[in-house]
Amino acid sequence: MNEHNLQNTISLLTRTPATLDALLRDLPETWTLQNEGENTWSAFDVVGHLIHCERTDWMPRAKIVLQFGETQPFGPFDRWGHVSECQGKSLAQLLDEFARVRSENLAELRALNLQPEDLDRRGRHPALGVVTLSQLLATWAAHDLTHLHQVSRIMAHQYREAVGPWNAYLGVLQCGGHSSP
Amino acid sequence: MNEHNLQNTISLLTRTPATLDALLRDLPETWTLQNEGENTWSAFDVVGHLIHCERTDWMPRAKIVLQFGETQPFGPFDRWGHVSECQGKSLAQLLDEFARVRSENLAELRALNLQPEDLDRRGRHPALGVVTLSQLLATWAAHDLTHLHQVSRIMAHQYREAVGPWNAYLGVLQCGGHSSP
Repeated sequence: MNEHNLQNTISLLTRTPATLDALLRDLPETWTLQNEGENTWSAFDVVGHLIHCERTDWMPRAKIVLQFGETQPFGPFDRWGHVSECQGKSLAQLLDEFARVRSENLAELRALNLQPEDLDRRGRHPALGVVTLSQLLATWAAHDLTHLHQVSRIMAHQYREAVGPWNAYLGVLQCGGHSSP
Repeated sequence: MNEHNLQNTISLLTRTPATLDALLRDLPETWTLQNEGENTWSAFDVVGHLIHCERTDWMPRAKIVLQFGETQPFGPFDRWGHVSECQGKSLAQLLDEFARVRSENLAELRALNLQPEDLDRRGRHPALGVVTLSQLLATWAAHDLTHLHQVSRIMAHQYREAVGPWNAYLGVLQCGGHSSP
């Protein structure tokens, strides 16, 4: 019943940096630096968050599962960790950095040469409890998609007034976001 | 109060084909050919729909506004027009075709050399009533974003089970879509 296929996950993870690069690089700041209101993120912030996750979440947690199993819960994740990550950088720099750290992490993942039985290994999430390595890696890919979903929504928000009566037809403008803490 | 800036719109419209290309080309069919259930679209279908819109919606309607103003309502739009558009084609062919027709349409848009007063010109939508050329062009860009939002959601849906307990944290998996007829 496990739908997870590691090659499919890697295929997607490989493409996200180029996707965001094609969408965002040199785009006017109206699209990239504006957010959806107080305490929300811009597309720029999202790229910073993705970099922060590369450094502190996915591969570090995968290594905790492989080394300690369920005995050592993952450390807490700082949802505002991108703030220091973004400090003093341009969007172009963040896009370059995301591509680099993602590529390094995928090289490390491939080098683990994970077998099906490895994917069943269990770790402990501090809030969610027991999780498998398979679930962690699938989440890495789905997390890229959740932020692509968010970026398209943040950007569309900037045209909420400009589209006039068409706002009723544009699904993305009906999406209020679905973030969990 | 009109937030619409034509250069910003063109900047975004220019990038969408390369964005979808970076995300989807040569990606395993798990991601590109599966949908969200009966009567829903796959990422492949969405690219076909975007091509169909290039041919029948945006620039054709812009020309109706410029030529006839409010006197001639736009024709109806076929939401399933992509079916014939996609027939017998690979995703790679559709991505190539989308890039080509988008590029042609943007060349045509630029050649119109629209001035601010042109953007205020009014046309008639069969259901929405009076709309401006500015609103039509802003909607062209926001429509790209609504389908990028949809594609990320369709793709994430394929990993709904694979992510295990993380599904509670992934906003895109809480999104049920927001399509209007």
